Amino acid sequence: MTPLDLPAINARLRACHPLVQNITNTVVQQFSANVLLAIGAAPAMFDHPADAAQFARIADALLVNFGTATNGQLLAADAAIAAAAGAGKPWVLDPVSFGAGDFRTQRIRQVLARRPTVVRGNASEIMALAGTGAGARGVDATDAVEAALPAAVTLARQTGGVVAVSGATDLVVAILHGQVRVARIAGGSALMALVVGTGCALGSAVAAYLGAIEADRDAVGEARFDATVAAHAHFALAGSLAAERARSPGSFAVAFLDALYETKPADFSRAKIALETRDQP
Amino acid sequence: MTPLDLPAINARLRACHPLVQNITNTVVQQFSANVLLAIGAAPAMFDHPADAAQFARIADALLVNFGTATNGQLLAADAAIAAAAGAGKPWVLDPVSFGAGDFRTQRIRQVLARRPTVVRGNASEIMALAGTGAGARGVDATDAVEAALPAAVTLARQTGGVVAVSGATDLVVAILHGQVRVARIAGGSALMALVVGTGCALGSAVAAYLGAIEADRDAVGEARFDATVAAHAHFALAGSLAAERARSPGSFAVAFLDALYETKPADFSRAKIALETRDQP
Amino acid sequence: MTPLDLPAINARLRACHPLVQNITNTVVQQFSANVLLAIGAAPAMFDHPADAAQFARIADALLVNFGTATNGQLLAADAAIAAAAGAGKPWVLDPVSFGAGDFRTQRIRQVLARRPTVVRGNASEIMALAGTGAGARGVDATDAVEAALPAAVTLARQTGGVVAVSGATDLVVAILHGQVRVARIAGGSALMALVVGTGCALGSAVAAYLGAIEADRDAVGEARFDATVAAHAHFALAGSLAAERARSPGSFAVAFLDALYETKPADFSRAKIALETRDQP
Repeated sequence: MTPLDLPAINARLRACHPLVQNITNTVVQQFSANVLLAIGAAPAMFDHPADAAQFARIADALLVNFGTATNGQLLAADAAIAAAAGAGKPWVLDPVSFGAGDFRTQRIRQVLARRPTVVRGNASEIMALAGTGAGARGVDATDAVEAALPAAVTLARQTGGVVAVSGATDLVVAILHGQVRVARIAGGSALMALVVGTGCALGSAVAAYLGAIEADRDAVGEARFDATVAAHAHFALAGSLAAERARSPGSFAVAFLDALYETKPADFSRAKIALETRDQP
Repeated sequence: MTPLDLPAINARLRACHPLVQNITNTVVQQFSANVLLAIGAAPAMFDHPADAAQFARIADALLVNFGTATNGQLLAADAAIAAAAGAGKPWVLDPVSFGAGDFRTQRIRQVLARRPTVVRGNASEIMALAGTGAGARGVDATDAVEAALPAAVTLARQTGGVVAVSGATDLVVAILHGQVRVARIAGGSALMALVVGTGCALGSAVAAYLGAIEADRDAVGEARFDATVAAHAHFALAGSLAAERARSPGSFAVAFLDALYETKPADFSRAKIALETRDQP
Repeated sequence: MTPLDLPAINARLRACHPLVQNITNTVVQQFSANVLLAIGAAPAMFDHPADAAQFARIADALLVNFGTATNGQLLAADAAIAAAAGAGKPWVLDPVSFGAGDFRTQRIRQVLARRPTVVRGNASEIMALAGTGAGARGVDATDAVEAALPAAVTLARQTGGVVAVSGATDLVVAILHGQVRVARIAGGSALMALVVGTGCALGSAVAAYLGAIEADRDAVGEARFDATVAAHAHFALAGSLAAERARSPGSFAVAFLDALYETKPADFSRAKIALETRDQP
């Protein structure tokens, strides 16, 4: 198991300024764009079906989130995913709202079948997506993260990609070389759950980290796992720093954007990450 | 006339964490979601016609605001209102943009005819909705709150529900036991008018307070009146506190979210509320 | 060449509280509305094709930005532009996303042909719009402002209006009395590029300043040039002030809104503006 070199991964992100296309909900578009700018990436939010595919070929990575999906966005996502996948670009599915209504549940299931590079959600969403658990109630997680580990493994096997579960301690899971690799990322702050978009913007940040790596064919799985862990570590570090500066959600949101910006490669050595490899169940 | 027990109403909101479905304009979605999180509610913004009704049956309350309505949102609102009303769930109409164009004026009038639990707007909107006054000019109020009292009484009689008028001093009006009950809520800050979404998010907060009560059949009118007053008191208290901390609108918006979060049940004893009962005109 | 009286122009804006209709992207709607409120204007964001034209006749100025345009917004913009132009109201085109996809590039070109009062973009967008340069990569500028001067002159000749290029030093260009007038506005902060919407909201601010002037027929060209410079000076002054108060993008965005609000007419005497008149190429 290659050790994670998070400072190097963050330095790479800052150097290459990846362009991330976000087809995402209108509630979090501003926050997600500011998060991407704060970490050194470039946001774009073009979500019209007429040119989403064209832009997906220009962008370095794609994020899809159907929280307030319109028919236009659904068509745009279809086209953009096909274009990104066809060009070998990484793309992230945030299954927010899975289980909240049959229409979007079905659409998210269709997107999952296209094997996203990374699926990132909260425990309730990941469990519901894997066919266990009760599903989301809005955007809040009602299930504990650790309980979602089997569901995350199931999904990772199904997609062949990475699955990330956000919560008090985040989980990142992938099947690599026939074994289950798990990272647990501690840190952050309970106030993150009181700022709308911290979860959704993490999906955008994962896409940015994925867009910053150019792994060789043999190590692409590891590199994507590591990039996903790095995005989560970035949020955990910034959340902890922001919680030292603010105690209420309005000022915490401001402090969190500041902290994302101020978190430099060397700071990643303080990330609280536990790595584990286990046999497949 | 039962005295208002605002601390108890706020304690109930914090305890039951109501889920509020918001079919609202894209300008304020982020702010409204953050306001709901700050006061202890759970926001959802699903506004696709294919599943808005399904979600309205899950949510505890619904808020409808056509500020940037698309055809999709208009259809979603129709379906969600029918579902909420059918399930006996409370729902709030914010008539923002009434009078700004024939198309949306007509649509808001149709929604009004479905008898919302609460109508919440500024004086210009409430007067125009009742057929008096000049109508809205964008989202700013050009009429004084007190001048809107007769219009509010007219609308309250028409809908059988509560009507709230926001301004320097807010008015909440309902017809209860054949008499007009009026609450006047003082406090807040003039800076609230310089932060987009404070009015629209108040509509969401009213929905949250409504979603938190489970009144028995005999007292449902009183309980909904009281819940609406409590939401306005929460905003007035937070606005006053934020104005002690910030003097310009950028930092005021941050301080206001902090203050909403920090305002606990006991603080409601400081709310400046005047109650009055008068005979119907 | 009439000297610029920026304090008087800002005083006029504050006195007449212009109403600005924004058909703009959902990423920046909240920020743009807050910027308009902070400078003393009134925002409206009605973008439904059924009443956009009706509202454009009520509003004092119009801003069009296709960053996340839907078919509905595209139709609304067509109708609103025709109504504004027909009523002699000023309107601003922000060509954000020009070059990012054929579909929106073509639509922006069509809007340009309707001769906007002001075109405001970054160097890459202005160069691409004039048929030089590589086009936008998302919303970030990859070309230097000064390199866009010839393109700005070309566009100003084409539209008969004002063309503004945003960057470290902003350029405002118009053809007046057969000569090229150029203003260079220094100030601001590099952090503005890390807050999404500072560029887009500047387009809205330009519309507000245009909406505040009522120039006589002979001097309308000068007045619109001056109003555009004033909007840029307002942003440059506020950006400089905010940079004294904040060093990271989250707190900078808050400080910037505060600073826009706090910048009063007298402060405009500190604006760093260089005016130049040159013969047409």
